[in-house]
Amino acid sequence: MTRIAVVGATTWGITLAAVLARKDVDLRILARTEDEAAMTRASVFRTPRLPEGFVLPKGISVTADGAEALQNTDAIIVAVPSQSMRRNMKLIAPHIGKRTLIISAAKGLEVETGKRMSEIIAEETRKDIHDNITVLSGPNLAWEILAGRPAVTVIAAEKESRARRGAKLMTVPDFCAFTNTDMIGVELGGALKNIIALGAGIVDGLGYGDNTKAAFMTRGLTEITALGTALGANPLTLAGLAGQGDLIATCSSKLSRNHQVGARLTRGESLEHIQATMNGIAEGVTTTLVAWKLAQQMGIEMPITERLYRVLYHGDDVRATAKELMAAAATHELAGRKWGLFSLFRRRKKPEIAF
Amino acid sequence: MTRIAVVGATTWGITLAAVLARKDVDLRILARTEDEAAMTRASVFRTPRLPEGFVLPKGISVTADGAEALQNTDAIIVAVPSQSMRRNMKLIAPHIGKRTLIISAAKGLEVETGKRMSEIIAEETRKDIHDNITVLSGPNLAWEILAGRPAVTVIAAEKESRARRGAKLMTVPDFCAFTNTDMIGVELGGALKNIIALGAGIVDGLGYGDNTKAAFMTRGLTEITALGTALGANPLTLAGLAGQGDLIATCSSKLSRNHQVGARLTRGESLEHIQATMNGIAEGVTTTLVAWKLAQQMGIEMPITERLYRVLYHGDDVRATAKELMAAAATHELAGRKWGLFSLFRRRKKPEIAF
Repeated sequence: MTRIAVVGATTWGITLAAVLARKDVDLRILARTEDEAAMTRASVFRTPRLPEGFVLPKGISVTADGAEALQNTDAIIVAVPSQSMRRNMKLIAPHIGKRTLIISAAKGLEVETGKRMSEIIAEETRKDIHDNITVLSGPNLAWEILAGRPAVTVIAAEKESRARRGAKLMTVPDFCAFTNTDMIGVELGGALKNIIALGAGIVDGLGYGDNTKAAFMTRGLTEITALGTALGANPLTLAGLAGQGDLIATCSSKLSRNHQVGARLTRGESLEHIQATMNGIAEGVTTTLVAWKLAQQMGIEMPITERLYRVLYHGDDVRATAKELMAAAATHELAGRKWGLFSLFRRRKKPEIAF
Repeated sequence: MTRIAVVGATTWGITLAAVLARKDVDLRILARTEDEAAMTRASVFRTPRLPEGFVLPKGISVTADGAEALQNTDAIIVAVPSQSMRRNMKLIAPHIGKRTLIISAAKGLEVETGKRMSEIIAEETRKDIHDNITVLSGPNLAWEILAGRPAVTVIAAEKESRARRGAKLMTVPDFCAFTNTDMIGVELGGALKNIIALGAGIVDGLGYGDNTKAAFMTRGLTEITALGTALGANPLTLAGLAGQGDLIATCSSKLSRNHQVGARLTRGESLEHIQATMNGIAEGVTTTLVAWKLAQQMGIEMPITERLYRVLYHGDDVRATAKELMAAAATHELAGRKWGLFSLFRRRKKPEIAF
C-alpha cells in the first residue's frame, strides 16, 4: 500500500492528511511532541482553524517518532511554517529514502536568506534525492477543502515525471493536482501572494469595496510577477492557478490569516499585538520583508510591497499609506504610465542576492 | 468650459455623469424619450441599480433632443446596451463634431456580427473622426463609484494622444483613468469577462466556495485571453485592469447582473424568466453566444464558454454541467495537460469570422 507521511500537525498538515484519507493509503502524521501527537490522535486541536467538530479520519496514525513516521514512505509532505523548514529538514533528512518523494507544502521564504522552501530542502538533504523534491501550491483554503468543496492544486518538480508522480499521489475525489515544471514560479506564487492578501485585508478593513480591491489585486499580481520573473519564474505560472488563482482565493477569504492581519491593522491594532493573539503564523508578514529586500537588491519596482513593508516594520500609518498609494496611482497616470503588466519583461535582471 | 454629453440614461450613463460632476464641466444626458428625460431630471429612476436615495447632481441637464445634447461637445460618452449601439450611433452620428472624442462605455459584442463597439462606431461614423473613437472599461461597479469609493478605469484609443485626452477628461477625485492603445484588448476584456462572471454566479449558487471560484476565474481568464489574443488583443491587456481587474470585480459582486443570472440558473429558474424579471440587461448572455461562435470558427478551446453556451441556449442542466466541467479538469490532469496560460500563444490563428 502507498505510504505517505505528513510532517507537521498544523492546520494544513492535518488537512492534507484528511484529504488523502479519501483514498486507500497508509497515512502517518509526524507531530513535534508526544503531547501534540496524543492530542491530534484524540482530535483535540490547538488550532481553531479546523472546522467545528472536525475529527481526524480513522486509520491515520500520529506519532512524534521520526523514524516510525518517515521510514519506507513513498512520499513525505512537509507542512510546517516556512521559518521552521530548515530545522525540520535537519531532523527528517536521515529518514528520507532514495525513492521517497518530498512534497513541500509550506508557502513562504526563509527570512534570513530569502530562499525558497525547495532550496532549503535541497541544502539539507543529500544530492542523490534532489530530483525527488517537489512543491505543492494553489488556491487551497484548508477549511473549504475539509468541507469537501472541490479544489485544485499544483505540484511542481524539476522533472515532469516527479511532478506527475506527485499529482497522482495527491489527487483524490474533489481535490485534483495539476503539474508544472516551474518550481520557482509555483513556490513564489504561493509565498508572494500573501503580501497582496495582507494588503487586501487593509483594503477591506478600510471599506473600499470591490472595484478598489480588484484594482489592488491586479496591480499586486503585476508586481509579484515582476519580482518572480526576475527571480527566474515563468510569468505564465504566476498568471495560473499557483499565482493568480491562489491570490484570488486568499484575498477573497476573510478567514485567511494574512487578510486578517491587514484588516486588524486598519482597526489600530499593533503588529505585535496581532501576532501575539493570532492562531498560527501569517506568512505574509515575513514574506513582505523578504520581498522588499529582494526588490531593493534587484531594482524591481514594488510600490505595494514597499509601502506594506513600511507599515509592518516602520510603523507607517495604514490609512495615510493607503491614501498615498492611491495618489501615487494617480500620478502614474499623469506621467503617462500604464497600469498593467506592460513593463514586466523589460526590467529582468540577473538575481544578485546578498542577504 | 469643457462640455460632455452622455448618451443613455442607463445606470452606467447616469453614474458616469454623476462622477464627472465632481469637476467643473458642462454635462448633458441624452435620454431616449421626453418622458425618460423628465423622470431622470426629477431623479426618478427606472433602474433600482442606483443607490437608494440617489439624486442626480445639480447642473446636469437631461434632454431627449439629440442636437441640444450633442452639439459642440468635447466628448460624447455612449453608455447604451451593446445591442442598441448601432441604432444609437445612427441617431447621434450627424451631431458628432470633428474634434469630439467618442467614448464607448458599453461592454459587449454585437450578436449578429460579433463586432466590438468601436468597430460599430467606426462603421456608423465618417472616416475623418475615426481617430477620436475611444473605449472605456475597467473594474467599475457603478454603485461603488457613486458611493465615492476609489476606482480606476482604462481608456483606450488607437492613438495614445486621444487616450490621454480621454483619461484627462474622465479623471476626477476617486476615479482615475489610465491609458492603453490596445483597444481590442480593453474592449474584449470588458465584454468577455461577463461570461466568466455568469459562470462565477453558478459556482457561488452551487455553494462551491472560494477555492473553486478562484480556480474557475483563473481558468476563465485563460480562455478569454486565448480568444482575445487570437482576435488581436495584447494578452498583457487582459492580465491588467481591463481584463483581470474587471473580471475579479464582477465575479466578486453578487450585485452584478451577470453573476445574478448564473446564481438564479442554479435555483432552477429558466433563462427566459430571469431575463424577463431582471432590471436591465445581463450582457454576458449574448456575449457567451458570440464568444462561442468565434471560438468555433477560430478553433480556440473554450471549455467554460462552450458549456455555458449549452446551458444558456440548449437548456443543459446547470448542476450536471458543473460536475462535467470538473471531471473534464481531472481528465486534463491525467492527460498531463497543464492548467494555466501555457497553451495560450500556440493557437493563434488569423480570424476568419463568418457570422
